[in-house]
Amino acid sequence: MGLVDILRDDARNAPESGIVAVMNHGRNKEGMLPLWAGEGDLPTPDFIRKAAIDALNAGETFYTWQRGIPELREALARYHNRQFSTKLTSESFLVTGSGMQAIQLALQAIAGNGDEVVYFSPAWPNFAAAAGIASARPVSVRLDFGVDGWSLDFSSLSAAISSKTKAIFINSPSNPTGWTAGREELRAILALARKHGIWIIADEIYALFYYNGARAASFLDVMEPDDQIIFVNSFSKNWAMTGWRVGWLTVHPSLAQVFENLIQYSTSGVAQFIQKGAVAALDLGDGFIQMQVERAHRARDILCEALMATKKAQVFPPDGAFYLFFSLDGIKDSKSAAFSMVDQVSLGIAPGSAFGQGADSYFRICFNRKLDDISSAADRLVSWISKNT
Amino acid sequence: MGLVDILRDDARNAPESGIVAVMNHGRNKEGMLPLWAGEGDLPTPDFIRKAAIDALNAGETFYTWQRGIPELREALARYHNRQFSTKLTSESFLVTGSGMQAIQLALQAIAGNGDEVVYFSPAWPNFAAAAGIASARPVSVRLDFGVDGWSLDFSSLSAAISSKTKAIFINSPSNPTGWTAGREELRAILALARKHGIWIIADEIYALFYYNGARAASFLDVMEPDDQIIFVNSFSKNWAMTGWRVGWLTVHPSLAQVFENLIQYSTSGVAQFIQKGAVAALDLGDGFIQMQVERAHRARDILCEALMATKKAQVFPPDGAFYLFFSLDGIKDSKSAAFSMVDQVSLGIAPGSAFGQGADSYFRICFNRKLDDISSAADRLVSWISKNT
Repeated sequence: MGLVDILRDDARNAPESGIVAVMNHGRNKEGMLPLWAGEGDLPTPDFIRKAAIDALNAGETFYTWQRGIPELREALARYHNRQFSTKLTSESFLVTGSGMQAIQLALQAIAGNGDEVVYFSPAWPNFAAAAGIASARPVSVRLDFGVDGWSLDFSSLSAAISSKTKAIFINSPSNPTGWTAGREELRAILALARKHGIWIIADEIYALFYYNGARAASFLDVMEPDDQIIFVNSFSKNWAMTGWRVGWLTVHPSLAQVFENLIQYSTSGVAQFIQKGAVAALDLGDGFIQMQVERAHRARDILCEALMATKKAQVFPPDGAFYLFFSLDGIKDSKSAAFSMVDQVSLGIAPGSAFGQGADSYFRICFNRKLDDISSAADRLVSWISKNT
Repeated sequence: MGLVDILRDDARNAPESGIVAVMNHGRNKEGMLPLWAGEGDLPTPDFIRKAAIDALNAGETFYTWQRGIPELREALARYHNRQFSTKLTSESFLVTGSGMQAIQLALQAIAGNGDEVVYFSPAWPNFAAAAGIASARPVSVRLDFGVDGWSLDFSSLSAAISSKTKAIFINSPSNPTGWTAGREELRAILALARKHGIWIIADEIYALFYYNGARAASFLDVMEPDDQIIFVNSFSKNWAMTGWRVGWLTVHPSLAQVFENLIQYSTSGVAQFIQKGAVAALDLGDGFIQMQVERAHRARDILCEALMATKKAQVFPPDGAFYLFFSLDGIKDSKSAAFSMVDQVSLGIAPGSAFGQGADSYFRICFNRKLDDISSAADRLVSWISKNT
């Protein structure tokens, strides 16, 4: 028996990332086009980096507010009120060390040993894994793939809720499927949560990456202030800040002190110079977001058209987020196919097996990238398909 | 019933910081000398900030290695092998988003619902609070204060271990007491842990702030490679990087993948530009540490002598860390006394009540500060004592 066997079961059982195996296979290959990760190709804009650099130069290197600097929490209120027509104040916001940490804190606040949390699959794997580490049981509800793309069967959701359920986790627009709930769908889910007295953890980080209007529907559009909803969010996607590890929580102000305590006892806050960068992102970044979304819209169409033209792909243009999640005729083992794409055409995409049970035959490709690369990716994919299906 | 009442008990019961109340009372008072927090008065050295700024300018803003960049993990190995005469490789190290997060990850790995973890009090409150959030039960062992300062009664420690105990948390040199275990004491604690098959979480972040030799004794001096010891550490104190939120874990290499997974599902890593600053700290920062330690040594003596001369203080010069933890004749309520010190002499120190049961009549003063301030703090404290005891 080794040391690892003495660790807590729920820690030892946390899965390794299913994408990393493919990334490791292709990491050092020359000419690789890497579309496996959930990030774009652009570095953080200069005006954001400059704000952080200015703070570092000014010596802002001391402990700061556990719930985030007032300046950033006020900028978050302005951003929400502008983009979502809310009337929130800074009291609703807490700054976190990533969207992932916001999820972890939400779980700490509402679900522990023996509790259940419901989520939709195929799914970005991190929510279920974080729930498992917290000794809660993640219960998945399968989204269905049909001729109109991915959809939620409401009766399946309803059936998944038990007396142990503490929360429904909803990622809309969704990574990896692009499934995006409409306003009426959100109303129905909220009514269900109210009926059972359970929480909603709303992950709407792709709300502005939406191709069917100005933004995706949000629980902010349909909720009352005292609904049991915790929003988790991230600076990663909107402002190309994946590597910064900064996000936020939007909660009822009456919950803020508890979340501040949870922050105190997990990471004890976020670097002030990072927060200064985040302020610049919120106040000056709308144009950057718009540019990214327009580019992603065109990238989505290029890839979808190329895949559809092969007549060997099951694919539908997603309304939101920046991924295509698709399958190919006759391909059941997406992991070995992803390895083969690295070897044969130097294309890196994520195998569906990384996104939970039942997704083994799917692939995820990230299309938040410059259009030359997207066209090249489409060519490589079509070439691989013609040889292997 | 409000929303807060629906939260998980272990989250709602996490305590607010006991220091913040006093800080809020004095935050905006002119002429305050703030020695309440566990940080020094120096901003992060220029060479560390410059390394982070260079990385930001170079566009290092993307996702990076979950367990830390290889360059930083190699620098950590060099640092340990230089300062602690170890022969560790980069495989033993994982970068975390603060020492606090290292503690949280250690707890996730070894203790959950219904488990017990033993720690020594008076204590920095965060370990016990983090254990409580994880639904583990923190069990305190009182350190004793006598004419020779703080000491551990080994039989009390032994008696605190039950069949549910998963770990002993040892912070040596200790915040707030300055208690520092000798090598033989560490050997005895290790023997006890081995006998019971339980883990040691070793928090030795003040190891170089030691006034009785080159550094404090470390479990690294007495352990075998396969002992159940997890080291939690931080860049905060040695390199004046409190506000950066970066730390590390030192573990047996066979545990690294599990800890990497726990990082993935909590904060998903640390910003690469912060890690570049940390590399500079480790490789170029020995002189800065030495300067700080020498200054703290003199500051400790100035404050101790002033307090002893009043003949109204129970105080002993601590061997390690950078706090005096002392009591005053006739003062039982340290919290109201700390408020009074703010009001009467503009001196900010932390009330003992922030450090657990039985410490209500103590005070903690941080002496990692320029000597002019320390002399002034000593004068103010003596003045307050003469009027109030």
